[in-house]
Amino acid sequence: MIETELGPGLVEDLSGLLGDRLSTARIVREHHGKDTSFHPLCPPQAVVFPENEDEVCRIVRACLRHRTPIIPYGAGTPTEGHISALKGGVAVDMSRMNRILRVSPSDLDVTVEAGVTRKQLNNHLRDCGLFFPIDPGADATIGGMAATRASGTHAVRYGTMKENVLSLSVVLPNGERIRTARRARKSAAGYDLTSLFIGSAGTLGLITDVTLRLHGIPETVAAGVCGFPSLESAVATAIAVIQSGVPVARIELMDELSMRALNGYSRLDLPVAPTLIFELHGTAASVAEQSDLVAVLAGDNGGSTIEWRTRQEERNRLWQARHDIYFALLAQRPGAEGWPTDVCVPIASLADCIGETLSDLRSCSLPVAILGHVGDGNFHVLFAVDPTKPQELAEAKIFNDRMIRRAIAFDGTCTGEHGIGYGKLGYMDLEHGGAVSVMRALKQALDPNDVFNPGKVVPVMGRSATAGVAGQDDRARSLLHTPA
Amino acid sequence: MIETELGPGLVEDLSGLLGDRLSTARIVREHHGKDTSFHPLCPPQAVVFPENEDEVCRIVRACLRHRTPIIPYGAGTPTEGHISALKGGVAVDMSRMNRILRVSPSDLDVTVEAGVTRKQLNNHLRDCGLFFPIDPGADATIGGMAATRASGTHAVRYGTMKENVLSLSVVLPNGERIRTARRARKSAAGYDLTSLFIGSAGTLGLITDVTLRLHGIPETVAAGVCGFPSLESAVATAIAVIQSGVPVARIELMDELSMRALNGYSRLDLPVAPTLIFELHGTAASVAEQSDLVAVLAGDNGGSTIEWRTRQEERNRLWQARHDIYFALLAQRPGAEGWPTDVCVPIASLADCIGETLSDLRSCSLPVAILGHVGDGNFHVLFAVDPTKPQELAEAKIFNDRMIRRAIAFDGTCTGEHGIGYGKLGYMDLEHGGAVSVMRALKQALDPNDVFNPGKVVPVMGRSATAGVAGQDDRARSLLHTPA
Repeated sequence: MIETELGPGLVEDLSGLLGDRLSTARIVREHHGKDTSFHPLCPPQAVVFPENEDEVCRIVRACLRHRTPIIPYGAGTPTEGHISALKGGVAVDMSRMNRILRVSPSDLDVTVEAGVTRKQLNNHLRDCGLFFPIDPGADATIGGMAATRASGTHAVRYGTMKENVLSLSVVLPNGERIRTARRARKSAAGYDLTSLFIGSAGTLGLITDVTLRLHGIPETVAAGVCGFPSLESAVATAIAVIQSGVPVARIELMDELSMRALNGYSRLDLPVAPTLIFELHGTAASVAEQSDLVAVLAGDNGGSTIEWRTRQEERNRLWQARHDIYFALLAQRPGAEGWPTDVCVPIASLADCIGETLSDLRSCSLPVAILGHVGDGNFHVLFAVDPTKPQELAEAKIFNDRMIRRAIAFDGTCTGEHGIGYGKLGYMDLEHGGAVSVMRALKQALDPNDVFNPGKVVPVMGRSATAGVAGQDDRARSLLHTPA
Repeated sequence: MIETELGPGLVEDLSGLLGDRLSTARIVREHHGKDTSFHPLCPPQAVVFPENEDEVCRIVRACLRHRTPIIPYGAGTPTEGHISALKGGVAVDMSRMNRILRVSPSDLDVTVEAGVTRKQLNNHLRDCGLFFPIDPGADATIGGMAATRASGTHAVRYGTMKENVLSLSVVLPNGERIRTARRARKSAAGYDLTSLFIGSAGTLGLITDVTLRLHGIPETVAAGVCGFPSLESAVATAIAVIQSGVPVARIELMDELSMRALNGYSRLDLPVAPTLIFELHGTAASVAEQSDLVAVLAGDNGGSTIEWRTRQEERNRLWQARHDIYFALLAQRPGAEGWPTDVCVPIASLADCIGETLSDLRSCSLPVAILGHVGDGNFHVLFAVDPTKPQELAEAKIFNDRMIRRAIAFDGTCTGEHGIGYGKLGYMDLEHGGAVSVMRALKQALDPNDVFNPGKVVPVMGRSATAGVAGQDDRARSLLHTPA
């Protein structure tokens, strides 16, 4: 771990600005140096806790003067090392910027500070009959979700952050603040800066507030669990549902291992089989119509009878269990950490891509589960790895590498929703070819000093993929091969 | 009009490459130098007609060598001077790149060359039960629609080009070709280059093919016309429909003058009153449910009984008439050209914004109609101006200027869908503030020689709005004040 001090004067500058909202304590730095995955601890040299946008601008200017990296920090829930301080620097923890600035029920939109979490927002919105659907599982911050282009279970119906952010306030690498767009539902006025910052993972600027589209809480919501004789038949059902145009709100795939872990961890008694969980939104009549069609399509593929749950507590328990699968799986192997893969392919290729992945995994010695947001063609293989055993990391890396190459061969992507961070830098050239040079030009244009989250998203020229984790900074590479 | 020859050697280079698919004939150049609006003729010095992407790359490299502007040309249907050759140069007419490259009904997507028009595409798709919803009225090319971030009547349900393009092939200003994304429904792999090029109006590169999301043709489609006692009550109904969460597919506003013109031009006999035209998509049961709710909300605001039309020929005739209103209005004043304004505001402000605009227009001496895609908060005032009368252009400009400032004061945009072109350059600073400097940096990074559609979208530093059309190139300014 880098114990180097920050450049002389920077700590003084920042503590003059923030007082005790600057910390260099080891425990605080370590808390900010590890995400929810196998990526090793890589803490910043200091952590700051701004309370408003003006403080963020001052922090950025101070770091720029000292050419010190800035790493934006939301809830710490990425999985590709987005928050690792690969070159040291200052983590900007946004948790104190957690005000809901404005709700406009009649416009169906809201503006929040970046540190507001999605659960906090939905609790706040409930009384006005609206909700914000994007749901990556973790109780992530809205700023972090925008920065990583998060999606999750509802994306099949409501889209990802890309489709649900109307506007951002961003502090640029030069310390200036911009607003990327106004609040109109659509605009053709110039370049789409909102989309440029969404998914840029703090490499182009620091998001300070977010204006979101909201949706009416549906009149009727029904969730149903359906077991299948095989993973293939479950996937075939998911594809048929999408191709039939059912406006399904969620359609989640889990394999047997996931279901067993889920039952144990969440004290449920669901059938242990390859499973789809559906959720349908609409009027009572529309949900009834959708559920009939889903039942027919599932039945065609050998699916079990679906019991639809419309009570909110029941549904919440089911979805919380679904979201906890990651921890449920890891709990089965004490001390293990998760290596969640994340590919996404065109829907008609999903069955083949999952089938080839299953064949490949037959030779894998690690505990492994498959689950996914299959309505989008997005699925995850979760490896539970012992971080003290380099051979386990190496094995997961090899399967992940093949899985990514397979997805890209199906014209898919190496990451449907988790992002590049530094863990997938080595696949950017393979996926994007010459377009990476455009991304590099954009980074250079907006952050010429490479101060914002260096070593993430855009690979350094000339470093291409070798075994799947190349391309990142030397510090990270050495950490990765020498687990903490 | 500039009659200057192109730089020595360029015509020879291009004709060596393209043979008779290079034209410097005056009639061809003039055809490519004027869009569907009052903006004056400003032709390029040559027009080329490439037939494949390789030719586009060579054209770009030749123009780059000669530092000669490139103006992409689709169907010539913008309204803000996007295709005006403000600094001369070569128009690249994409009409011969009109192949549908791939349809994947099971993935619900398609890849087309940039010169395919939306009607051509929908004719091609009909047999597989799919359609592409984005519908700006004109039979625009898909490439042009992507370049201008087009939307239109269906955007309220299906989104704009931003939400419906999965990937683009783009020839960059350096002559290299990139693909902006793969074909997965969603991806978190790096910066969102697709969105960056959508709406960039040919200033960052030339779009050669487009991969689009498709949608299933709904089981039931019903269109209905509803007259209201006032424009205000029609607008109130539109707002109520959106706020009630009815998934309306189209909701179009027209004033009395528009309806009178429409009846005359399209030989229909619709009531001459402030009117909403609705379209509902879904299953039979869902459309029935939606139509009941719409009827109640319209009735609450004094709307007439709605007769729902489900036969395709009837609906097509209605929508063709709606799309022809622009020409219907201009036909009432022989020799007139259209100045279509295009603001968009958050939906709850729509009634106030339209109300204030109506008050303002009471003192206008020009023929004027109001229509809009009101479900998005987007509306147009159409002025029919005599282009030989500078005082008419000046009058329209003043009302347009006030309308834009009003929309921006409501946190809206100066253009919901028509784009900036050069006609609205002067409002970029007002709408975007410091964010314009980010756009300028992006333009500089990708097109450092300012070869791609110069003088459009991004204002030159230091030239701000005066009376609403400032900021553009001197040639355009002089043309604007000296109509052809």
